[in-house]
Amino acid sequence: MSDSTYPVTTANKVNRYKHQATYDIDTIHTIVNTTPVLHVSFVPNPAIPLPIVLPMIGQLGLYNPLSPPSEEDGEWHCYLHGYVSSRLMNLADAALKRGEPGLPLCVAATKVDGFVLTLTPNSHNYNYRSAVLQGHATIVDDVDEKLWAMRLITNSVVPDRYENTRVPPDGAEMQSTRILKMQIESASGKVREGVPEDERKDMEREDVLDKVWTGVVPVYEKLGEPQAGPYNRVAAVLEHVARFVKEENEKREKYAFEAAHKPAPLKRPAKKSET
Amino acid sequence: MSDSTYPVTTANKVNRYKHQATYDIDTIHTIVNTTPVLHVSFVPNPAIPLPIVLPMIGQLGLYNPLSPPSEEDGEWHCYLHGYVSSRLMNLADAALKRGEPGLPLCVAATKVDGFVLTLTPNSHNYNYRSAVLQGHATIVDDVDEKLWAMRLITNSVVPDRYENTRVPPDGAEMQSTRILKMQIESASGKVREGVPEDERKDMEREDVLDKVWTGVVPVYEKLGEPQAGPYNRVAAVLEHVARFVKEENEKREKYAFEAAHKPAPLKRPAKKSET
Repeated sequence: MSDSTYPVTTANKVNRYKHQATYDIDTIHTIVNTTPVLHVSFVPNPAIPLPIVLPMIGQLGLYNPLSPPSEEDGEWHCYLHGYVSSRLMNLADAALKRGEPGLPLCVAATKVDGFVLTLTPNSHNYNYRSAVLQGHATIVDDVDEKLWAMRLITNSVVPDRYENTRVPPDGAEMQSTRILKMQIESASGKVREGVPEDERKDMEREDVLDKVWTGVVPVYEKLGEPQAGPYNRVAAVLEHVARFVKEENEKREKYAFEAAHKPAPLKRPAKKSET
Repeated sequence: MSDSTYPVTTANKVNRYKHQATYDIDTIHTIVNTTPVLHVSFVPNPAIPLPIVLPMIGQLGLYNPLSPPSEEDGEWHCYLHGYVSSRLMNLADAALKRGEPGLPLCVAATKVDGFVLTLTPNSHNYNYRSAVLQGHATIVDDVDEKLWAMRLITNSVVPDRYENTRVPPDGAEMQSTRILKMQIESASGKVREGVPEDERKDMEREDVLDKVWTGVVPVYEKLGEPQAGPYNRVAAVLEHVARFVKEENEKREKYAFEAAHKPAPLKRPAKKSET
């Protein structure tokens, strides 16, 4: 992947806990692409500054129909799948008619990696990774790009799943599926990992240190043993599902436990993405 | 708890997959109060219809300083803790000055309970529970209410945690902590649980049924064995942490596996909250 970072502007600059901020493209993309639900926000009525938030499934991807995708050949977009209502369609149309590049959207992805329990409620924290993207979105009309995005999104849930189902989608399915494509105009992330941190005033109190348990409860999304449905006829859980469940569980558990033992953020030498 | 539902209006009416919609207060409150990160959205500049989304910790709660809280004696609010920036403070102030009851906010909570794998990508789904609240928020100024909310939010992460730390917060901590309080003007939820569902056209294809594994991969947030931090002196993990981890894991695993075996939504008799 790339070494690049998203530009830091007034729109995405993180002003609090700066040492936890990241603009690193790989970090942000990984957070978004491993989060099963993205929270997508937009303003239904431009005259009233009240947004709505919808849970959607999405992926950052690079569509390039002409050659194998490479960093140089195109632009990464956020592809979103979910219920794209007529209202959302109309809003996107209205924005285009106003001369905007699409519907203004904000997409957020957050993963909780642990509960950080400290001496005092105020220094309690989470180990977590979050990313926020802003940009303008349009509906994907191109049939090839739409098929490509449907495959990308299906396989983000379980790898190789698309190829292991009844495909391609028929005409009615293509008609009823709408994919939103967001141009990423601003992006930032935050990562907190590590052991608890307390303020000096509490670290000097023997009575507090003797009484309060401090540490991290690791948290990770666990995938259970796949449960066959009522009309399933395939005896074994197909290999692409079984392997995914096993590998993901190992990887997720490992991350949460390792994060629980890393040095505390304020005491750690700055990483490249944190400078 | 109550039998009540939130009013259905044009603002919160669910138009798609209506059989999965809920306006039931208990269901919505449980989703919000068991979700470790809420996604909070607002519009930074009322002149531009582009929202931002922040991950925050929050709880629905009923504050009543005069008597033991009861459904009749007050109103439930959503209390939010996180970095309340000067920008957010200024926006809330500006909204009050415009005569609005606070900063317009949208709060979303989503829990993924399973990946529902069907015969064709288009009928793939998640078992999930989601809730969306809209309303206006102000900063909590009252010291007693603020302390009450800090306790509520700390204990939402690990029950009884607040009482097992160095409390009460001192002056500097009270100063640096800001709690947002949102009046709930609109709320709705969606719940999908159950086995896979496919369309008749695919259920009639023997070749597809013979080839594609269908079922549910249960998903739940797992809490790992608590990991003591570097300056912890308390030998055993305190009982309130240990018990919470054990009970939560049992409960969460049970929910995800049970959801994987329930009848499919479209084939189920309508529940009260679905009518």
